[in-house]
Amino acid sequence: MFDILLSIREESESPLYLRIYKQIRERITCGSILGNTRLPSVKALQLQLNISKTPIETAYQMLSAEGFVYSKPRSGYYSVNMGSACSPGIDMPSDAGTLQSPEQPMLREYAIDFHPGSVDHDMFPIRTWKRMLNLALEDYSRSIGKSGDMMGEIGLRRALADYLRSSRGVACSPEQIVIGTGISSSMDLLAKLIDGIDHVAYEEPGFKQVRDQLLSHGYRLIPIPVDSESFQIQSLEDSKAHMVYVTPSHQFPTGRVMPYVERERLLHWANKGHAYIIEDDYDGEFRYFGKPIPSLQSIDRHGRVIYIGTFSKAFTPALRMNYMVLPQSFMSKLTKMSSGLSCPSRIEQWAMQAFIEQGHWYRHIRRMRNKYRRKHDQIIECIRAMFGDKVEITGHSAGLHIQITVRTELGANDLLMLAADKGVRVYDFRQMWMKPNDAGYPRIYLGFAGLSESDMDKGIRLLKEAWSDILI
Amino acid sequence: MFDILLSIREESESPLYLRIYKQIRERITCGSILGNTRLPSVKALQLQLNISKTPIETAYQMLSAEGFVYSKPRSGYYSVNMGSACSPGIDMPSDAGTLQSPEQPMLREYAIDFHPGSVDHDMFPIRTWKRMLNLALEDYSRSIGKSGDMMGEIGLRRALADYLRSSRGVACSPEQIVIGTGISSSMDLLAKLIDGIDHVAYEEPGFKQVRDQLLSHGYRLIPIPVDSESFQIQSLEDSKAHMVYVTPSHQFPTGRVMPYVERERLLHWANKGHAYIIEDDYDGEFRYFGKPIPSLQSIDRHGRVIYIGTFSKAFTPALRMNYMVLPQSFMSKLTKMSSGLSCPSRIEQWAMQAFIEQGHWYRHIRRMRNKYRRKHDQIIECIRAMFGDKVEITGHSAGLHIQITVRTELGANDLLMLAADKGVRVYDFRQMWMKPNDAGYPRIYLGFAGLSESDMDKGIRLLKEAWSDILI
Repeated sequence: MFDILLSIREESESPLYLRIYKQIRERITCGSILGNTRLPSVKALQLQLNISKTPIETAYQMLSAEGFVYSKPRSGYYSVNMGSACSPGIDMPSDAGTLQSPEQPMLREYAIDFHPGSVDHDMFPIRTWKRMLNLALEDYSRSIGKSGDMMGEIGLRRALADYLRSSRGVACSPEQIVIGTGISSSMDLLAKLIDGIDHVAYEEPGFKQVRDQLLSHGYRLIPIPVDSESFQIQSLEDSKAHMVYVTPSHQFPTGRVMPYVERERLLHWANKGHAYIIEDDYDGEFRYFGKPIPSLQSIDRHGRVIYIGTFSKAFTPALRMNYMVLPQSFMSKLTKMSSGLSCPSRIEQWAMQAFIEQGHWYRHIRRMRNKYRRKHDQIIECIRAMFGDKVEITGHSAGLHIQITVRTELGANDLLMLAADKGVRVYDFRQMWMKPNDAGYPRIYLGFAGLSESDMDKGIRLLKEAWSDILI
Repeated sequence: MFDILLSIREESESPLYLRIYKQIRERITCGSILGNTRLPSVKALQLQLNISKTPIETAYQMLSAEGFVYSKPRSGYYSVNMGSACSPGIDMPSDAGTLQSPEQPMLREYAIDFHPGSVDHDMFPIRTWKRMLNLALEDYSRSIGKSGDMMGEIGLRRALADYLRSSRGVACSPEQIVIGTGISSSMDLLAKLIDGIDHVAYEEPGFKQVRDQLLSHGYRLIPIPVDSESFQIQSLEDSKAHMVYVTPSHQFPTGRVMPYVERERLLHWANKGHAYIIEDDYDGEFRYFGKPIPSLQSIDRHGRVIYIGTFSKAFTPALRMNYMVLPQSFMSKLTKMSSGLSCPSRIEQWAMQAFIEQGHWYRHIRRMRNKYRRKHDQIIECIRAMFGDKVEITGHSAGLHIQITVRTELGANDLLMLAADKGVRVYDFRQMWMKPNDAGYPRIYLGFAGLSESDMDKGIRLLKEAWSDILI
């Protein structure tokens, strides 16, 4: 057992759990707490600090979720081996997102659709957004006849650079940001910017839309297996890949959060081999438990990370606006080929700039995070109440969808059909696998952001009815 | 001399010149007037029809500009040999456009910029557009949480199909239309949709942005020389190309209008070789002299034409919205890969749908056509007054830019520098050539849409000052 002296009495506005979390994290990442060291118990820290148990438990749960510590049953928490480098003092990141288009043809009507790409339409700030659009049209009436900068309006890029720095720890100049129309436009642009790469690694399962894009650009794909437990980084290191696409904040679709130590190892791989990491932080704004892990971009010191974020999750997918933060080394090439870019409406970019500058964005994110936290807690509670141990919930505590594993002898497709008969749409995401793996119980995905609380409850209840006879 | 009986007394709301034009055109295209037949003189028709000279002259000028007739000095008008097929009864087309991004870095400030991609900002219907946006946000508030159809909102595609049918003769179902974010997104999509094509032919000079896109997708480019006089279709026929990109309504940048007979020959080439024609109708809305020639799409009977239009010229480049009409045969593949599309904001698509459905679009086009016709006439008048025969104007009578050939021993670059010293920006479009050709006097391009009448005059006057010493 290792004793740590925490000084939590300092003048600080951040909550107690966060101060505890930060101090332990810092000592682990800097090596002042060595790897695999048993940490003080909750009770011990409680006595030492003379505070309640809750903030200490929260801090440990965060550290555990983010891979700084691990727990051994009936033994307590242990520090993870961080290797050498001391992580820079990031002031806790918090957000981003990407267009997550549905499986197309909606051939039948569903009363309740757990679509993972939908967001809450009731919370959309219609009146404020109208005002921003009107303002944009008036303020920029003299610019409306010109096509503008295809990399995006510099004002919006400035506002975004500020936001990304303060909330995701992403360090970049406005010039490194390219505003795009979604993940497809970002992948198209990257394919044009990056030469000489044949093999691209890819999470298996992963975001099908991106996989299709990579294939259409002629890359050879190397699937790297990922599940709720692990991302097989060793097979990446053994591969020919010089680029990898990852969703570390909330792996799509499994919902796994990539632990800190894996992030460091991934960056190490990229540095060593002059490879690139595409970090798609598609729903990084939404974590319901503590604060997010630093983005890869924020701990990258060698310009190996391409960071992608979106307005589709935190604002609306109807806007079709996203952004990409490119390494400095891409700048000269980018400037030369900027006519091949796919850029969203200038009018909506001006509106978004005003929305951020006037503080509406930050307020909106806070409101949405609270709202989605409630929905997240509610769907989990409801599933537990309805299904008990017949269904295992994973990939939660972040993002806008959860993964459930259903104890049944039927396949995922059967579950979808039974649900559809009750008018409920759920997703099997089989197409997210390059090589679908039918071993084990079927996994089903439920997005909860787009449904009202009552529809969500009703939907789960209908799922229970639909599946009650086939659960084992 | 051939006598034709025209019946212009029929009940019809279309203007006299149009009825004359249509009847002669129909007889030529159907072969009831054979090729190389001398047509009745203006005087003869005037006597026959008992009307004034003007509508007859206008009709002949239209027929001539569009390649149905040609004139021999001191002899009169002759019909062009149309070959066999009778063209379908198209009800006169009229419009479209494409994002025409400038040469990037605007390193210096120009008081007056003849940018060919700018449009008139004073005429932008700010109040109406605000109303449409507000309406869209209200009417579709329940859809704002969903990402929607990546091919575009079906309502807008319906409205566009109607518009394209009535104004450009483009025959298509709404499902064939894909809404995109500009020419780049269209070319990216085509590269994904079309397999097995290595060689793509391309107008030389032509739209650099598209050429770059084609190159970035790995196509081998075959330049087909074009100037104000001819498009060397023979060299296309002799080439390995299975796809060609053309701007027949107003060739970019020379301003040439592709004559009807060449259009037929181009279609014949495509049919015979199962090749595709990409018809970029980027500023087809704007013809100041008579009515436009039918689009290639409208006379294509075998699904060989991909038609591209834009809102950038007729509405605003700030919207970054365009559309593509695909042949029916592309539909099944398109539906499968629709997640790789780059689609503009749904909110602005809903607004555009309302704008068209409520009739604002048609009114706007009419207003803009009148406005630009005045600017077009004025810039030509002004150049003639200032430069006399020292400058030859070509590529006019359509679109939003003109080409001038300046009698000087200096090169285009010198002309640009001299103009810049006076604070005037003009364009040499050298980058529009794959292999710049410096033979002959330098060609300079002037866009007139984005400038006020007084700035336009001032700009031409400053050009005169800048170049007065070097004209020969």
